[in-house]
Amino acid sequence: MDPRVKEHAKILVEWSTEVQKGDMVVIYASPVAHDLAIAVTKEVAISGGSSVIVMQSEDVMKAYYDGASNETLELFPKHLNALFENCDVFIGISAPVNTKALANVDPMKIIARSKTNKEINDMIVAKRWVGTIHPCTTLAQQGNMSLEEYRDFAYNAMLIDWKNESKNWYLMKEHLERHDDIRFVGPETDLYAKTEGRIWIAGDGKHNMPCGEVFTAPIEDTVEGKIYFDIPLLQQGKVIEDVRLAFEKGEVVDFSAEKSEDVLKSIIETDEGSNKLGEMAIGTNRGIKQHTLSMLFDEKIGDTIHCALGMAYPDANGTNQSAIHVDIIKTMKEGEITAGDEVIYKKGKYFYEM
Amino acid sequence: MDPRVKEHAKILVEWSTEVQKGDMVVIYASPVAHDLAIAVTKEVAISGGSSVIVMQSEDVMKAYYDGASNETLELFPKHLNALFENCDVFIGISAPVNTKALANVDPMKIIARSKTNKEINDMIVAKRWVGTIHPCTTLAQQGNMSLEEYRDFAYNAMLIDWKNESKNWYLMKEHLERHDDIRFVGPETDLYAKTEGRIWIAGDGKHNMPCGEVFTAPIEDTVEGKIYFDIPLLQQGKVIEDVRLAFEKGEVVDFSAEKSEDVLKSIIETDEGSNKLGEMAIGTNRGIKQHTLSMLFDEKIGDTIHCALGMAYPDANGTNQSAIHVDIIKTMKEGEITAGDEVIYKKGKYFYEM
Repeated sequence: MDPRVKEHAKILVEWSTEVQKGDMVVIYASPVAHDLAIAVTKEVAISGGSSVIVMQSEDVMKAYYDGASNETLELFPKHLNALFENCDVFIGISAPVNTKALANVDPMKIIARSKTNKEINDMIVAKRWVGTIHPCTTLAQQGNMSLEEYRDFAYNAMLIDWKNESKNWYLMKEHLERHDDIRFVGPETDLYAKTEGRIWIAGDGKHNMPCGEVFTAPIEDTVEGKIYFDIPLLQQGKVIEDVRLAFEKGEVVDFSAEKSEDVLKSIIETDEGSNKLGEMAIGTNRGIKQHTLSMLFDEKIGDTIHCALGMAYPDANGTNQSAIHVDIIKTMKEGEITAGDEVIYKKGKYFYEM
Repeated sequence: MDPRVKEHAKILVEWSTEVQKGDMVVIYASPVAHDLAIAVTKEVAISGGSSVIVMQSEDVMKAYYDGASNETLELFPKHLNALFENCDVFIGISAPVNTKALANVDPMKIIARSKTNKEINDMIVAKRWVGTIHPCTTLAQQGNMSLEEYRDFAYNAMLIDWKNESKNWYLMKEHLERHDDIRFVGPETDLYAKTEGRIWIAGDGKHNMPCGEVFTAPIEDTVEGKIYFDIPLLQQGKVIEDVRLAFEKGEVVDFSAEKSEDVLKSIIETDEGSNKLGEMAIGTNRGIKQHTLSMLFDEKIGDTIHCALGMAYPDANGTNQSAIHVDIIKTMKEGEITAGDEVIYKKGKYFYEM
C-alpha cells in the first residue's frame, strides 16, 4: 500500500477526529476506498476504538432510487439511525466510482430521501466528524490528471503539519475579528460586506481533509459591489465558468457566466435565500496547486477567496436560510483583501508573511 | 450487469429472507461483492425495505487485528450491536478478496474477538438471515475454474425454483423422521447411528444460498462403524484428502487422511466434543456438479452425504458441544442410504426418484 494512505489515515484518526480509547467509529467508504478504509480501521484499533465501515456508492444509491416507491423513500432507516446514535466519530470518505450515476434520477426523489435522513445527518455533524477523499481514477479524471499525478496532488494538500500550519489561520481569524467589515478588491472586483458580530472560523482540518480556509457569514443585507470569479465550478453535472455577480443591499442584482449561465441562474433563483451570500472566505492551503472541480480542494487553494450563495453556517452566527450553498472561487494573486484599515492579503502575501 | 446477479438478488430478498414493507435490512459485502450489493439494495427497495451495507473484507479484519490490543479486542462494538438490534433481516455475502489474509494472525486474537462479538452473532441467527457468495476470482481460483466457468457453476446451483425443488427434501425429512436410525453403506463404509427424537431439517435456501441438504444430529453415543470420505476439504488453509474415520460408542477410535492428517488430528483433538459427530446429512442439490473446496457448495452436492465432527445444531435436538463444526463429504453414487427398513437412496437415486 502507498505509505501515504497510512499517513492520511493517521491524520484523520489522530488529528481530525481525535479517536480515543473506547470510541465507536463509523466510516463511510465506496469499494474504491477499500485501501483507506483498511488503513483507518488499523489506526482506529491502535487508538483503542472500534469501527464499522458502511459501503456507499453512487451505483448503490441509484439502485435504491430505482427500486423505491414514494412510500419507501419516506421509510426512516432506524437501523442506520441506531448505528449513529451509538457512535462517537464519523469519517466520511468520498471516492466516487461514477459521479454521473445519479444523473437521470428524479431530483424530487433525492430531495424526499434527504428529508427522511435529515435527522441522521444533523446527528452526525453534532459529533466528531471529518469528510475527506481517497484518490481514485474518477477524481483524477475529473481533475484532468493521471492517477499518480492526482495522488501527488491530493497528498500534497492533506499530508501537512495541521497543528503548525493552522496557527497562522487562527491568527488571521483573530485579526479579522478585530474589524467590522471585509473587502475583496481585484480585477473587475470590489466587494464589501459588514461582519460585525459574526465569527470567523479557521478551517484547520478537523472537519474537512484537506482544509485551509478562514470563513465567516457576512451580515446578509450589507453585501455591496461586484466580483469576478475566475475559477470554474461543477454544479448539476455541468461546469460553470467565469461567473460575474453584482450586489446591492445584499442581493444579487446582476449576474453572468461565460459557460452554463442557465445553471447559475437556476441556482440564484432556487429560493428566498439563494440570491444572497451565506459565506465569504479566504483560501489558505498553499499545498493545493491547481483547481480540480472538487470543492473540497478548490475552495482551500492558497491565494484565493470564495463566496457562497445560499445557506449560512450558524457556527459563524450567520442567519441566511436556503436549500443551497454554492461556493464560487476567485484567484487573488493580483488582488487585495482588507478588513477595516488592515491589509490581510496583498501582492501574493498574507499579512503573516509580510 | 450479468442478469443472473439480479436473479440471485431476487431469490435472496424474496425467497430466502422474505423482505416485507418496512423491513430494516443489513447486508455484509466485500468490495468485490459491489454488484450483488447493488442488486440486493434495489430488490430490498422494491419490497419496501431499507438497507445498510456493511463493508467486510479479510484485509479489513487483518488491519483490525494488527492494530488492536487485548483490551481493544474486548471492546464491545455497541454501534454495530445497535444496528443489528434495529434490523429485521441479515444478508451475508461472501466474496473474498484474499482468503489467506488472516493466515498469520494469532488464533487467540481471533478467538478473543469472536467472544466479544458472540452476543451480536447470536442475535443475527435469531432473525431472518441468509449466507451466500458472490462469484469472484478468488472463489473461482479456489474452485480450480476460470471466473466465467465459476459463475456458471455458482448460478446453476443457486438460480433454481427453491419452492418446487425443496418439496422432495421435505418429503425426505418426513420419511427419515418415521424411522429411528440412519445407515450409510458404500466402499469402505458402513456407518450407523440412532436418530430417535432428533429432528431432520430440510435445507431449502432460507439460510444458505445455495442449499440442498437434509440433516440431523445423531444421538451422540450411538454412532458405530467406519466411513471413507472421498471429497477433499479446506481447513486451516490446508487441503485434507481421503479421510477415514472409525467410531465406537459415538467416539472416533481410529482416523487417517492421505493428505494433511496432522490437521485432521488437531481438529479431532480440539476439545471434549470434537471427536463425536454433531451432524449426519444427505446432500440433495443436483445443480452442483463438482466440489470447489467451499463448504457452502460442497456439502450440498447431490448424490453425497456428509458428517460433521463437533457442535450439533440445537434446532435438530442435538446436544454435542464443541468449539468446532467440521463437515466432511462422501460421494454416494456407489452407496446406499437406509433408515430403519426403508431405502432412502440407492443406485444413484433418491427414494422419490425411484
